[in-house]
Amino acid sequence: MSLNSIFQYFVPKDRKVFFPLFEQASGNLVVMSNVLIEALNTADLKKREELYNQIDKLENFGDELTHQIYLELSKNFITPFDREDITQLTNAIDDVADYIQGSVNRMSLYKVEKITQPIIKLAELILLGSIEIDKAVKELSDLKNVRHIADSCIRINSIENQADDVFDRAVADLFLYEKDAVELIKYKEVLAALETATDMCEDVANVLETILVKNA
Amino acid sequence: MSLNSIFQYFVPKDRKVFFPLFEQASGNLVVMSNVLIEALNTADLKKREELYNQIDKLENFGDELTHQIYLELSKNFITPFDREDITQLTNAIDDVADYIQGSVNRMSLYKVEKITQPIIKLAELILLGSIEIDKAVKELSDLKNVRHIADSCIRINSIENQADDVFDRAVADLFLYEKDAVELIKYKEVLAALETATDMCEDVANVLETILVKNA
Amino acid sequence: MSLNSIFQYFVPKDRKVFFPLFEQASGNLVVMSNVLIEALNTADLKKREELYNQIDKLENFGDELTHQIYLELSKNFITPFDREDITQLTNAIDDVADYIQGSVNRMSLYKVEKITQPIIKLAELILLGSIEIDKAVKELSDLKNVRHIADSCIRINSIENQADDVFDRAVADLFLYEKDAVELIKYKEVLAALETATDMCEDVANVLETILVKNA
Repeated sequence: MSLNSIFQYFVPKDRKVFFPLFEQASGNLVVMSNVLIEALNTADLKKREELYNQIDKLENFGDELTHQIYLELSKNFITPFDREDITQLTNAIDDVADYIQGSVNRMSLYKVEKITQPIIKLAELILLGSIEIDKAVKELSDLKNVRHIADSCIRINSIENQADDVFDRAVADLFLYEKDAVELIKYKEVLAALETATDMCEDVANVLETILVKNA
Repeated sequence: MSLNSIFQYFVPKDRKVFFPLFEQASGNLVVMSNVLIEALNTADLKKREELYNQIDKLENFGDELTHQIYLELSKNFITPFDREDITQLTNAIDDVADYIQGSVNRMSLYKVEKITQPIIKLAELILLGSIEIDKAVKELSDLKNVRHIADSCIRINSIENQADDVFDRAVADLFLYEKDAVELIKYKEVLAALETATDMCEDVANVLETILVKNA
Repeated sequence: MSLNSIFQYFVPKDRKVFFPLFEQASGNLVVMSNVLIEALNTADLKKREELYNQIDKLENFGDELTHQIYLELSKNFITPFDREDITQLTNAIDDVADYIQGSVNRMSLYKVEKITQPIIKLAELILLGSIEIDKAVKELSDLKNVRHIADSCIRINSIENQADDVFDRAVADLFLYEKDAVELIKYKEVLAALETATDMCEDVANVLETILVKNA
């Protein structure tokens, strides 16, 4: 028996079960955001559609992780932190994935082919938010680096504020320069979906802060 | 004294008080959704307006139930489950009723007379969601059929996903075929209100899942 | 040692720390709402922009208070009520401030210079809501007047209902009379931001009700 397996032997089962699932879910957000940026930066519309389909599949994978966390919750009496906080963290991460996929879905359904600078900028902010979520979630299993988690939460809040600014300015520009009202609404809807994805990142940060307040 | 009244004598008072109120509130959603579908399917605009008024009255009745649950909460020390969960369940059911009435209110205020297929489809999904909520709430008083409640929650989530799809496709069609931007916005707002009613059904499911996690 | 300082000596430290911060945050909402109304009622566009800037500064001040409450939460083991409820109350008050500032930000960015009656009316309802929040928060430190807090919550709910009505009618009027779709969307967005500020007041009332249910 290696040292490592002896160590694992003593780690309570609930920790071994929940944290890898959280980390897969948060890692999935980083992958989704990267695929989103790749899709937006390609001029090849067929390639872009394929990358959009990849995002759909990643979102389905996230749904399966969510389902599995709920399943583990029903099987495990002891949980690493409050059951409600586990469900809230799981749902909040799932909401980020939903809005990334929802943004892509709108761009595809509304046939938004011209990708504007604010769309790219918001996608980049979603990536930054996802990276901070992933970093914070990876610190959760070992609450000794509480400061790191708190710092990620602060950065997520700042990212959300930047996304608000990008959104507000982009919509203001639409009002100034887009004379076709139908086009204006279409782009406004796409920008709003992307901006809401960063709101959902902030919700994850709020849940993480609640977990810190209760457990640290 | 009949067997039944002896039985009632031993049922803790809090159960006798809260569950009938929850069941009236969830039953009220089913009635509201049915009246909504009847209103949308009639071509007689005067009849439709009367049915809309009926929905307003049902929403008021729901408000009274909400108020009464809060009142009981302030009078009863012992509650069938956590006080916070009772207020959340009550508010979530109330939110569904609010959005049903809100959708109708928009159709009436914006003079939306032509009822489209997606509007009917969303109303049908609201009815399906309300029926699942009502079934789940009726299982709450006796948490032995936890599986039934969990199944209803899964079905409510699937209903909400279907509503998302109907909404997304309907809005995409508006962007393709509706050249009058003001009409486009009007229908988009009505569809959004109906779709949000199914989001509120999902919120009820989330509260029910929290209650299961804590009590089952 | 004066009588007053002897008294302060025996007041638990946590009470001395948290309640003044809550009261500053709720008082800040009243100040922001008053500046908003002043800004909307002036015809001098330069003066109005200055008042908008003042609202930005007040919102920053609110952010600092939020930050300080979180800091105290991390330092104090004993809190006057549940840690989660403190964070929720803090966030809910912060959300009201965010939406007041957000409304102003939209009016400024979208160059909405003509202030309509519904805009004024919604701002007045935000002020009324802020005053009720401030009154309720000032009763929190001494939970003997639970009735007063509950009454404020009821009034906040009624204010939110009135705001809904004002918003619905205003949007219906836009659909009837505003033939320029871009202008219509612009005003609808501003009205929606103002109306959401009253929704956020209702969220504060919901948190206050939860605190009452748990502590009274």
